[in-house]
Amino acid sequence: MTISRPSGRAADELRPITIERNYTAHAEGSVLISCGQTKVLCTASVETRIPHFLKGQGQGWITAEYGMLPRSTGTRMGREAARGKQSGRTQEIQRLIGRSLRAAVDLTQLGEHSITLDCDVIQADGGTRTASITGAYVALNDAINHMLNKKMISKSPIARQIASVSVGIYQGMPVLDLDYPEDSTAHTDMNVIMDMNGAFIEVQGTAEGAPFTAQEMTDMLALADKGIKELIQYQTQALAS
Amino acid sequence: MTISRPSGRAADELRPITIERNYTAHAEGSVLISCGQTKVLCTASVETRIPHFLKGQGQGWITAEYGMLPRSTGTRMGREAARGKQSGRTQEIQRLIGRSLRAAVDLTQLGEHSITLDCDVIQADGGTRTASITGAYVALNDAINHMLNKKMISKSPIARQIASVSVGIYQGMPVLDLDYPEDSTAHTDMNVIMDMNGAFIEVQGTAEGAPFTAQEMTDMLALADKGIKELIQYQTQALAS
Amino acid sequence: MTISRPSGRAADELRPITIERNYTAHAEGSVLISCGQTKVLCTASVETRIPHFLKGQGQGWITAEYGMLPRSTGTRMGREAARGKQSGRTQEIQRLIGRSLRAAVDLTQLGEHSITLDCDVIQADGGTRTASITGAYVALNDAINHMLNKKMISKSPIARQIASVSVGIYQGMPVLDLDYPEDSTAHTDMNVIMDMNGAFIEVQGTAEGAPFTAQEMTDMLALADKGIKELIQYQTQALAS
Amino acid sequence: MTISRPSGRAADELRPITIERNYTAHAEGSVLISCGQTKVLCTASVETRIPHFLKGQGQGWITAEYGMLPRSTGTRMGREAARGKQSGRTQEIQRLIGRSLRAAVDLTQLGEHSITLDCDVIQADGGTRTASITGAYVALNDAINHMLNKKMISKSPIARQIASVSVGIYQGMPVLDLDYPEDSTAHTDMNVIMDMNGAFIEVQGTAEGAPFTAQEMTDMLALADKGIKELIQYQTQALAS
Amino acid sequence: MTISRPSGRAADELRPITIERNYTAHAEGSVLISCGQTKVLCTASVETRIPHFLKGQGQGWITAEYGMLPRSTGTRMGREAARGKQSGRTQEIQRLIGRSLRAAVDLTQLGEHSITLDCDVIQADGGTRTASITGAYVALNDAINHMLNKKMISKSPIARQIASVSVGIYQGMPVLDLDYPEDSTAHTDMNVIMDMNGAFIEVQGTAEGAPFTAQEMTDMLALADKGIKELIQYQTQALAS
Amino acid sequence: MTISRPSGRAADELRPITIERNYTAHAEGSVLISCGQTKVLCTASVETRIPHFLKGQGQGWITAEYGMLPRSTGTRMGREAARGKQSGRTQEIQRLIGRSLRAAVDLTQLGEHSITLDCDVIQADGGTRTASITGAYVALNDAINHMLNKKMISKSPIARQIASVSVGIYQGMPVLDLDYPEDSTAHTDMNVIMDMNGAFIEVQGTAEGAPFTAQEMTDMLALADKGIKELIQYQTQALAS
Repeated sequence: MTISRPSGRAADELRPITIERNYTAHAEGSVLISCGQTKVLCTASVETRIPHFLKGQGQGWITAEYGMLPRSTGTRMGREAARGKQSGRTQEIQRLIGRSLRAAVDLTQLGEHSITLDCDVIQADGGTRTASITGAYVALNDAINHMLNKKMISKSPIARQIASVSVGIYQGMPVLDLDYPEDSTAHTDMNVIMDMNGAFIEVQGTAEGAPFTAQEMTDMLALADKGIKELIQYQTQALAS
Repeated sequence: MTISRPSGRAADELRPITIERNYTAHAEGSVLISCGQTKVLCTASVETRIPHFLKGQGQGWITAEYGMLPRSTGTRMGREAARGKQSGRTQEIQRLIGRSLRAAVDLTQLGEHSITLDCDVIQADGGTRTASITGAYVALNDAINHMLNKKMISKSPIARQIASVSVGIYQGMPVLDLDYPEDSTAHTDMNVIMDMNGAFIEVQGTAEGAPFTAQEMTDMLALADKGIKELIQYQTQALAS
Repeated sequence: MTISRPSGRAADELRPITIERNYTAHAEGSVLISCGQTKVLCTASVETRIPHFLKGQGQGWITAEYGMLPRSTGTRMGREAARGKQSGRTQEIQRLIGRSLRAAVDLTQLGEHSITLDCDVIQADGGTRTASITGAYVALNDAINHMLNKKMISKSPIARQIASVSVGIYQGMPVLDLDYPEDSTAHTDMNVIMDMNGAFIEVQGTAEGAPFTAQEMTDMLALADKGIKELIQYQTQALAS
Repeated sequence: MTISRPSGRAADELRPITIERNYTAHAEGSVLISCGQTKVLCTASVETRIPHFLKGQGQGWITAEYGMLPRSTGTRMGREAARGKQSGRTQEIQRLIGRSLRAAVDLTQLGEHSITLDCDVIQADGGTRTASITGAYVALNDAINHMLNKKMISKSPIARQIASVSVGIYQGMPVLDLDYPEDSTAHTDMNVIMDMNGAFIEVQGTAEGAPFTAQEMTDMLALADKGIKELIQYQTQALAS
Repeated sequence: MTISRPSGRAADELRPITIERNYTAHAEGSVLISCGQTKVLCTASVETRIPHFLKGQGQGWITAEYGMLPRSTGTRMGREAARGKQSGRTQEIQRLIGRSLRAAVDLTQLGEHSITLDCDVIQADGGTRTASITGAYVALNDAINHMLNKKMISKSPIARQIASVSVGIYQGMPVLDLDYPEDSTAHTDMNVIMDMNGAFIEVQGTAEGAPFTAQEMTDMLALADKGIKELIQYQTQALAS
Repeated sequence: MTISRPSGRAADELRPITIERNYTAHAEGSVLISCGQTKVLCTASVETRIPHFLKGQGQGWITAEYGMLPRSTGTRMGREAARGKQSGRTQEIQRLIGRSLRAAVDLTQLGEHSITLDCDVIQADGGTRTASITGAYVALNDAINHMLNKKMISKSPIARQIASVSVGIYQGMPVLDLDYPEDSTAHTDMNVIMDMNGAFIEVQGTAEGAPFTAQEMTDMLALADKGIKELIQYQTQALAS
């Protein structure tokens, strides 16, 4: 069976990926990641303080916040700061980003520092949460290198490289890296975060209509594995440049 | 390899399940579900109005809210009503419950009605969100039957029976239906929602330390499949009584 | 003059009262009180900290919070946690419960501990605030006994036993312990909290239409005195069992 | 037994009362009431709209809001607008004022109008809520007269004249109209709202230490009756001038 | 060209000004300022604490809060405490008042004290923010004198006398001290804060339609200079009495 | 007298200005303006609805919102969406931007449309509010052209071209276009918005220490006039390209 993706991509084909480091001047890590038309600015901010619940345990913390600029989307969304609260979706996404990046790091090696990853969507075309995670990993690395250079820590606490991609069932077929036209009509949408060895950090799959079968799950996970391996390479190249 | 679960259960053994219908007097569906020491009151409330974004589309809506009584847990939690906001965790859970129950129903057959599923945790011992979904399905059924009896709808919009359970990696071994002592130390925690045919509604798995392997994922999904089949039977028995 | 109460009760007759201790597992005191169809779960939580304004005074504190499950009532009420604030009614009730229970205790004998009484209405049929106070007294007692057993305090700080009931003018006649059908149409509604000697802790009476006379006030207070004496006995029996 | 009140007043003596109408220019009723050093500005605002829950019932509504200027008190209180919420005490008081004034009016004679009574404490020395009610009655009258003059209504909906005073047990003796030095040390504090015939609109009595006896209750109510009769005269004189 | 101001005033004529000190009893400074029909109560509260960001710097702080009583205006405004937030306008005004009064004082001479200036509008007829600043200066002086009398400081930290007035373009002509009928139709509105030497503390001018020219700006600043010199005299007289 | 600006610029020299149109894909106008290291993304969103208070008046509306990305600054600022409210500074700035852009347009020619200008600071180095206004004017133009192309309006409602710049007193000398090192130590800071003819839209000048003199004011306004004329040219060139 052959499907035609709106973008003309093959079922297992990522969108064009670019990762631009040092995008802004002030943050210890600052990365603009583009996955096709989706663009997210990921900054990493190092602070010499830790949350209350970690006081005296000699370890660090990593957390994340996520936002969309009001006109990153096709129709303007209300500004969360003006509405006075973050939506459930926003909180869910930033909790996911934070958990994922904490899994990349040995927090006991971070000292009593915290790193905040701010992922702000400049332009949205599907897959903003997975792009955020993939980009934030690079920003986190730059922040860690900054800390090593400043002798804030003596060895890198990075425990594993991670990246994230979405997969789904579009028109009955498993596809990799859904863009907005696919995402908004897909029957199933799954976000996968893996490390460089193909082990799982997190899997979140949701049937948006008919349930999905065990075979479809297997197929989607295989696509995710392929896509994440490629994203890991993009990250590695960006960090080497 | 043999592990010893704190409760003495076998790795693939559910906790004792009871499902008590008509637990309170006012709601169209009112179910107290007990999964071991976890007790959740699930009520279904039928209202003849629909959210703004569905106006004029001739279909219905199902939504969920989740709460924990302040002393359902070992140490008292602050009351969310007093703090003035629901936590990110609460919102994440109630969004999950709502999505899952919507997947059980053909909303176009519901008419312009909405059903709210309130899942309030009376006593917590792990697995409150999965117990909420399993119990809410029964409360939803009672509410649907109420609507049929009242001629609010002429045929049942239930599309499929669903239930939910948690699985995880405890002490290196996949186990079914984690209680709190397991959940708080497990390396991986996964919540699975399936239908009566073993197809997936939602999967959410998180590594709480080391990533989990593809094999562990396969093993956990098999345990979930077994557990959910049993929960489907408990639901069926409860609805038949 | 003879009136017919909707429930068939005599004018000076309480609804059936049950007081079930240890209703949930985690709290230091946990009581389900039923006054007819009104059911309130009252838990007492002991914490070894005190509010800021009592720091360094060597005394303890007792406070209360009150909530209604969204479908404890005939039509679903919005969840206060979701609305982001507690209503004026909720705050008024929990302030009343807290004041009343503080009057039962010599706070200087409590040490630097605080006890929070959470009164959550599972099912409502009028009189939830008075049932909360009567039940919370029993939960408080259990928490105090827990503290004595744990040697947190060496002698009981309980200064007096208290209970609460509502009285009102229904169809022109003073009646005891109004249920919802009476409460919603009564001309006057009064909540009375007394101690075991018939002395007043608090009286709150409101004319919901025509003002009430001094004679009606006298009659209502006599009914309250009778009802509270009976409630005191129910509490005593529950605590003895 | 003779007690000495800090102010030198007799036990049954009100503080000096002044009621100044038309205190500000814009409101339909605007009254500055002084009870000794307590000064409250009570304005009545007429609007040609009614709350949602009264739509189509052909009746009106009366509501109240209460506030204290930050430095009306001995030490500055935080401004509620800046804190972003009204305290439980504020809400309790404004609910009391609103209920009391609604009892003074036949709402079905008010047409589809609403009257808001704003009671803002300029200077506080005890008894601000009772002064608010007594003053708001006069402001309400002026607003009603404005409506009659403007032909918004054809006959007065005033059903009864009301006033309010506090009584309490100070140094073991019942006293009338507590000022702040008495209020802050009194064993019992009771707020009474009555009509011109001595019938009760509302009674709220609280033991702030030892419970109070039935005899003390009788004595306090007698003092309240005397005080309110005098306040009714002050109101009548102010309205006649 | 001759214009006719609604009030009949000359273009460079202030409204009648009265400044009444010790208007309320509790505050260290309490001033009622009337500028025509605009009446603002300005209180100064001294506290022996400083904001967090000034800890350990040996200096003091001055801040301001602003509010309008709900019926200070022609139609009732919603109470900000009830709405749960201060409007942008309120915040803008209180930030302006605070900045202006800080400019009047050498904060390093204030010791570790803070003074809060509460400006509450009792009656509004245009120019409430400029009246607030002019009145708050007098209240601040009284509070400083209180501190000197109480030996909280040994010399006055007042660095300069300040006052404020509005100017604008009404019917094409520059005018001084706009009242509400002028303010609501003026083409340009400018608030000016100056010291006793005619130097500028703050200037805020806004075109409410057509832009204003450099010549109009010059003319308005000259009017402001004249008006502020007169207001400085009113302040001086009030402080001398 | 010669001063040395940290940037080496002459006293009357703007920072390098770039204006990049169509920076993002979805908005009807999308401009990235850079003033030296300050970078602001200004988007204009057209909506076919108007605020409630303009209903039925046949005119349109322009409003603005302003935000800073958390790490646009040297140290991370808390995210306003997470804190649940916009700061007074943010509200003040977005009110200023909105007023200024409304002055550029004849709202009666805009039809019943609203245009929202979102100004989000990507990188901050002083002058973010003035850069926002200058950039938003260009984004507004693009949105107006979009409306003309889509026949939503038949002729341009642009009434005048506007731009904005800051001036101040740095080290005793008037300077144009302050960057952060200057802004944070300047004695006086003034933001000026003018049209293409040098007439004033708004002037906001604040002494941050010693008051400023009439001569300094004249000098600053002359610098602003020069700077704004140059900015108007940059805008014109950007719109022509």
